[in-house]
Amino acid sequence: MKTKKVAIVGASGYSGEELVKLLLHHPHAELVAVTSRQSAGQTLAQVFPKFASHPKSKGLRFVEPNAELLARQADVVFLALPHGVAAEYAVPLIAAGCVVIDLSADFRLKSAEIYKDFYAHEHPAPELLKKAVYGLPEVYRAEIKQSLLIASPGCYPTSILLPTIPLLKARLVKSAGIIADSLSGVSGAGRKAELDYLFVECNESVRPYGIPKHRHLSEIEQELSFAAGAPVTIQFTPHLIPVNRGILTTLYLTPASATLDQLTACYQAAYANEPFVRLLEGKALPDTKNVVGTNVIEIAWRLDPRTGRLVVMSAEDNLVKGASGQAVQSMNLMCGFPETAGLM
Amino acid sequence: MKTKKVAIVGASGYSGEELVKLLLHHPHAELVAVTSRQSAGQTLAQVFPKFASHPKSKGLRFVEPNAELLARQADVVFLALPHGVAAEYAVPLIAAGCVVIDLSADFRLKSAEIYKDFYAHEHPAPELLKKAVYGLPEVYRAEIKQSLLIASPGCYPTSILLPTIPLLKARLVKSAGIIADSLSGVSGAGRKAELDYLFVECNESVRPYGIPKHRHLSEIEQELSFAAGAPVTIQFTPHLIPVNRGILTTLYLTPASATLDQLTACYQAAYANEPFVRLLEGKALPDTKNVVGTNVIEIAWRLDPRTGRLVVMSAEDNLVKGASGQAVQSMNLMCGFPETAGLM
Amino acid sequence: MKTKKVAIVGASGYSGEELVKLLLHHPHAELVAVTSRQSAGQTLAQVFPKFASHPKSKGLRFVEPNAELLARQADVVFLALPHGVAAEYAVPLIAAGCVVIDLSADFRLKSAEIYKDFYAHEHPAPELLKKAVYGLPEVYRAEIKQSLLIASPGCYPTSILLPTIPLLKARLVKSAGIIADSLSGVSGAGRKAELDYLFVECNESVRPYGIPKHRHLSEIEQELSFAAGAPVTIQFTPHLIPVNRGILTTLYLTPASATLDQLTACYQAAYANEPFVRLLEGKALPDTKNVVGTNVIEIAWRLDPRTGRLVVMSAEDNLVKGASGQAVQSMNLMCGFPETAGLM
Amino acid sequence: MKTKKVAIVGASGYSGEELVKLLLHHPHAELVAVTSRQSAGQTLAQVFPKFASHPKSKGLRFVEPNAELLARQADVVFLALPHGVAAEYAVPLIAAGCVVIDLSADFRLKSAEIYKDFYAHEHPAPELLKKAVYGLPEVYRAEIKQSLLIASPGCYPTSILLPTIPLLKARLVKSAGIIADSLSGVSGAGRKAELDYLFVECNESVRPYGIPKHRHLSEIEQELSFAAGAPVTIQFTPHLIPVNRGILTTLYLTPASATLDQLTACYQAAYANEPFVRLLEGKALPDTKNVVGTNVIEIAWRLDPRTGRLVVMSAEDNLVKGASGQAVQSMNLMCGFPETAGLM
Repeated sequence: MKTKKVAIVGASGYSGEELVKLLLHHPHAELVAVTSRQSAGQTLAQVFPKFASHPKSKGLRFVEPNAELLARQADVVFLALPHGVAAEYAVPLIAAGCVVIDLSADFRLKSAEIYKDFYAHEHPAPELLKKAVYGLPEVYRAEIKQSLLIASPGCYPTSILLPTIPLLKARLVKSAGIIADSLSGVSGAGRKAELDYLFVECNESVRPYGIPKHRHLSEIEQELSFAAGAPVTIQFTPHLIPVNRGILTTLYLTPASATLDQLTACYQAAYANEPFVRLLEGKALPDTKNVVGTNVIEIAWRLDPRTGRLVVMSAEDNLVKGASGQAVQSMNLMCGFPETAGLM
Repeated sequence: MKTKKVAIVGASGYSGEELVKLLLHHPHAELVAVTSRQSAGQTLAQVFPKFASHPKSKGLRFVEPNAELLARQADVVFLALPHGVAAEYAVPLIAAGCVVIDLSADFRLKSAEIYKDFYAHEHPAPELLKKAVYGLPEVYRAEIKQSLLIASPGCYPTSILLPTIPLLKARLVKSAGIIADSLSGVSGAGRKAELDYLFVECNESVRPYGIPKHRHLSEIEQELSFAAGAPVTIQFTPHLIPVNRGILTTLYLTPASATLDQLTACYQAAYANEPFVRLLEGKALPDTKNVVGTNVIEIAWRLDPRTGRLVVMSAEDNLVKGASGQAVQSMNLMCGFPETAGLM
Repeated sequence: MKTKKVAIVGASGYSGEELVKLLLHHPHAELVAVTSRQSAGQTLAQVFPKFASHPKSKGLRFVEPNAELLARQADVVFLALPHGVAAEYAVPLIAAGCVVIDLSADFRLKSAEIYKDFYAHEHPAPELLKKAVYGLPEVYRAEIKQSLLIASPGCYPTSILLPTIPLLKARLVKSAGIIADSLSGVSGAGRKAELDYLFVECNESVRPYGIPKHRHLSEIEQELSFAAGAPVTIQFTPHLIPVNRGILTTLYLTPASATLDQLTACYQAAYANEPFVRLLEGKALPDTKNVVGTNVIEIAWRLDPRTGRLVVMSAEDNLVKGASGQAVQSMNLMCGFPETAGLM
Repeated sequence: MKTKKVAIVGASGYSGEELVKLLLHHPHAELVAVTSRQSAGQTLAQVFPKFASHPKSKGLRFVEPNAELLARQADVVFLALPHGVAAEYAVPLIAAGCVVIDLSADFRLKSAEIYKDFYAHEHPAPELLKKAVYGLPEVYRAEIKQSLLIASPGCYPTSILLPTIPLLKARLVKSAGIIADSLSGVSGAGRKAELDYLFVECNESVRPYGIPKHRHLSEIEQELSFAAGAPVTIQFTPHLIPVNRGILTTLYLTPASATLDQLTACYQAAYANEPFVRLLEGKALPDTKNVVGTNVIEIAWRLDPRTGRLVVMSAEDNLVKGASGQAVQSMNLMCGFPETAGLM
């Protein structure tokens, strides 16, 4: 299988670091460039001591991002940049024929108006929105294989969409009244020097935030609406908890006169053969410690006989299935590699 | 003010330890006895090195629990025992004229049938259920002052009831469809040598448990039903998170055509003068680190214009307002001490 | 007892916050002013939600620091400022007749030259060095009572000096070859928005730092030299560990032909009656969780028959006995209050 | 390369779990059996949900340990059992021709007397002590390749021996007066349901333990003595810190008139080509977060001009380089696989 040359733009954050790790060990990818404004000039080994034992870590040096240069060096470019900035690089890279996998929110929405409503600025490249595919392989596998621009989903959306979409598509749950209560590890906030994310401020602390209109709601509701075939508005409450990694989401859904057997059958039909979705059996419930460091999402569900409500719970690593692992999964599909290459 | 002699039965668990701490520093209480089967014979200083600097810690020795002896020594007896066991001591102590404050679930339910349904054994002393007052001072202050037997509420119930009861009483929210999503520190599981609560199993882990029929649901629904004047059934999902102390509860409620101003006014009428309820203003949201070590519960609320739903969040220390602090607050009321004595 | 009016300059850091907490609850102190450049204009309740239930928290507002104004408002002023800055305020406040308790390093050294060597700038007020008393009450109680300017010790020095000074004074250990290996919680680094102290960078991490010439060595060696009656140079290795609070120091000392009984007798003579020093007996070893939130330092010692070396271990809360609690202890001595007032 | 069939005896502890993980992904090993008394009958997926996505996890079932059966199934057997018990299995397995890699202390000492002194019971198979090779590949690579019985080193010994042995062999440091101060994550205590290792007892806690005569001292001093060519007695202080994994050791050594350049040259000669030893350059200091999950040990050293002492610091993952990874490294050598197979 032919190796692809890959580059990471914005490689000094937590998602970028995880991409570096995955790509350094990927059997069919060769990491040829890493960019970072603040780390330019330093080697991989200097910026990330944990990679210093890898043979490439001393030769590979961070550079200032330059789209023209990247287009010449790499077949595939990952963008791990803030929203608004990613589009600046995506436009020339796509034009130059690169495959682009963007981890920001820039190409996740189909509507430039909704983007503006949630992100508070004009969309920087609305003409690309139609070309982009939402990079959730379990939902858009065929489209991803054909695409040159992937909008890789955020960590909260992945934890909510994968458990909900099959049920909505099968009309087994109502599209109204959905609640998603999510708990995220602190790496979800990024590697930012802000008081709120200091050890002392997060340790022995739990807190909700971003209520009631978190930015990720826009892509979550877009994708749920596609699945339901009708507009969906959900309640979403993110919380910050003192772990490095992991998202645990608890979903409250209303069955549309579905039985537990039907719900279980629906999940099995959707995911029994998916390599990165683990449907929990028996009494098992999700636990982030069972997925951290992997590209797996765990899902369990309970139909409560007392309330008639369906409670679905998922656990994932926000930096892997919720970010960089999922992006590599898309790369595998786009490049014709085995979907699990470098991810097992 | 006359000092009362107090004893703690079952003082070697986490609630017991917190009671010891509060009572050693209480201006009107004299701790005269602590019991514990496994620690009998040892001094307070030996069992709890952190109290070793207190003058009483070397003289006070744990003894085997003996109701007759306790009745002679103490005016007030706190029971920090497993459910089912607490009643064994409550019966003779009440008979002997002691004030009893029970931190177990034994006297929280008005119905012995519901007790049996949730706790899976016959109620050990059904005749006392009518005498017991549910020890939530913000709701039952008058009754607590008149009572000799307090059923002090559990940690999850306190975090759910205080934010919900005023709204239900004022008919500002519907009694149907209530969801409580709670996150608890590990001390809530008690000082038990079980693999599930080892450091390595809890650290870097988040997990739901006890779904969908947690035992505390019985007292939560009883008290919500009293407030609503009609039977209430709720959805309750507890999660374990890696902090020592603290409960963060997120409640999803449906307003009964109430405005935000009405909801805010209702909370202010109920709690503005309560010393241990902190209504958060402006953009502030609850954070367990702001209440740990105190008897305070923080409450914030948001009316979501997108969904029409009311999201209420609370934070408390599960061992203080959720257990021992609240029990001392009841003692203060029963004994005619200032309600905040030893708790500020 | 006459209440003193107290002010805190630089009250928005972790030491400042702990001072606020202690002084709000002090029976003989009235907190009249808190200053902070970044928080000026906000109330105590806004900056520290955890104090919002205190009656003073809504009336007391942070102001820009102004020595002249402070001198008019307060009898006692605590300086919780960076080194170099504290002296700017100490000079006019002392001139205006205030009692000053400085938590920075500015007045801890007797020699302006050594200050310059370790802190890399000229001492800002060398004329005050002679007036200042090193605020370690267990060592300098008499001097503190007579002083108007206290240089309150740092957290590492306290954890090293209290276990070592009595042995050096009694000549029971050699002054050469002393090693101090210390582990500190992250609050020791201050409330600073730096990447190194983010939750994700500290959690699941342990690391040495500041080797081999940490700034605190200057005051440690000064005080050890006074105790030994000869110059002492020590080896000191600080480590950062993922706890909010607490310092655990392990000291390696060489007995000067002392027996275990002599060493134990020395500690008992020095500290048996000290309210804030807890000498551990039997098999007990220090544990930060037994001192966090208190002004107590725990000390244990073992004479190793295999090596002949003496291993001494201490535990303290770096923000209480290692900073603000100790400063309040000095205030109590200076103002004629009971030494333990507000600290038990 | 011919695949070897491997079995793990005692696979339900933390070292066993890590062995399972490494061997499931090893390119030249086939995991054919896992034993555990308490988990017998359950599948790998049931006992370790985190491995449930591996194709073998549902077919492989824990069985009661049976040496005869294991000898028929496996070419290589790892023993992850308590000391004293491991020997029971090693004797028949060796007799049956298996390669045995023992992670307990049973075969680490050359002297049955010293074993008895430190482990308080007669050595169960003294005749095997001569056949066993101490499984530290960087020191005994040639011997490991020839051996059928490996005594894989403990986590503390590895963190102390690798930084010290080259210096002792080169006579660059004195063999007297060595101090090792170690900090260990809680997984080092094993998966044991004991109160001391509960989350609440370990979180926000740091404590020394096992002072002054920890069992691991016996193997540490044996190996240091071999390196020095003379008996070595050291001071060793282990501490428990609240991380899941990782050991940070700080060593205090006395140079034998060696310069920093000589010390650096010695380390480079010993380890520059070792795949699992990372010598830190420049200002970098070890941090457990840079080695957790890897088989790497980080080493840094500082010659203190003030004291003349050499301070050496190391960091490793106690379950990988300190246990299971190192055991797999030995397997690779014994079986003729690339030394890094399954470990990079």
